[in-house]
Amino acid sequence: MKKIGVILAGCGYIDGAEIQEAVLTLLAIEKSGAEAVCFAPDIPQHHVVNHLTGQPVPGESRNVLVESARIARGNISDLKKLDPAKLDALVLPGGFGAAKNLCDYAFKGAGCNVNPDVAAAVRAFFDAGKPLGFMCISPVIAAKVLGVEEIELTIGDDQSTADDIESLGARHVPCPVWNTVVAKHKKVVSTPAYMLGPGIAEVWKGIEKLVGEVLESV
Amino acid sequence: MKKIGVILAGCGYIDGAEIQEAVLTLLAIEKSGAEAVCFAPDIPQHHVVNHLTGQPVPGESRNVLVESARIARGNISDLKKLDPAKLDALVLPGGFGAAKNLCDYAFKGAGCNVNPDVAAAVRAFFDAGKPLGFMCISPVIAAKVLGVEEIELTIGDDQSTADDIESLGARHVPCPVWNTVVAKHKKVVSTPAYMLGPGIAEVWKGIEKLVGEVLESV
Repeated sequence: MKKIGVILAGCGYIDGAEIQEAVLTLLAIEKSGAEAVCFAPDIPQHHVVNHLTGQPVPGESRNVLVESARIARGNISDLKKLDPAKLDALVLPGGFGAAKNLCDYAFKGAGCNVNPDVAAAVRAFFDAGKPLGFMCISPVIAAKVLGVEEIELTIGDDQSTADDIESLGARHVPCPVWNTVVAKHKKVVSTPAYMLGPGIAEVWKGIEKLVGEVLESV
Repeated sequence: MKKIGVILAGCGYIDGAEIQEAVLTLLAIEKSGAEAVCFAPDIPQHHVVNHLTGQPVPGESRNVLVESARIARGNISDLKKLDPAKLDALVLPGGFGAAKNLCDYAFKGAGCNVNPDVAAAVRAFFDAGKPLGFMCISPVIAAKVLGVEEIELTIGDDQSTADDIESLGARHVPCPVWNTVVAKHKKVVSTPAYMLGPGIAEVWKGIEKLVGEVLESV
């Protein structure tokens, strides 16, 4: 059975992983007969946001791994334990957590830094010729880590983010929510997901397609 | 477009709504061309549980509505605002939150009390002849509120919970995870979901079937 690593960034689209994207990723993987193996960094979230009001909650602190465990029903490990040799592919759902906890793109744009364990994992899969999938805003991580490889990526149609991706050396390709962009070497796939929305049924189409293409490339 | 109310119980299967069941409910509703309208009670969670360790977190408090908003991407209202006249059906995903926050079945068994707003909503849809769907452990709420109606329900094959459901006047019917039980009057549907597991792909089959049957009964 193929094993697909999934890196989560918390639990909630404003301060963590986009929950719907994360769950749909797990569904797509298991429906395809593969196994999802979840990881998250054992670090504090950048902040905690009240998802009813959209406002940050001063003084509250939550841990990325502990909150990600809610989505994974406890079946999750510290990202430091990820061994690329034991997995066939790696997928990163989106949500602001990808841009706030896995890297600091939300604050520094193209000058962002990627969490070292996230960067090491992405680079290791790429160098081993194992497929990678990026959703929503997480292609900025691919651009930062792999931009020098001139891979094609999509975040949908947001020009500012697309410009940042290009400034990092990658090529941005506009893409509708139901579709994916497969890089020319066919080992990096991305889909806009909730960068475009407009709802879960459309996001599901893109994620199911991405997971299928990632598995085909294993 | 048919509008389906969805009552959430927090965000995380040990202290809130089962996240995967909740997301798959939203997916099934939208894929069917209907609209999901999310609600949760504006009350404190019974407790907060670390989903990595499974242990309660002493001294921490979270709000059911605020945490449920993470799953619904902020598109959620206080359960007190639910108007059955504006909705075509009502669905309750599971997770321990259904048995800890929407009622206290997890602590009191068949002698449990149901949150008054939850009970009023369930009774109002039933009395109006509008379909209801219950997943995982949430059929105990149906049994408590509607047991006198002698409806057929399932929580899978857990004998202790099945006995409680029967003691409340309902009829328990064993059911595999991919299937549903439709009550004889065809307006109450239930599926075991993560009462049985074993994984998201099987749970999805039962939830997709339940939502389809609920919508057919509108």
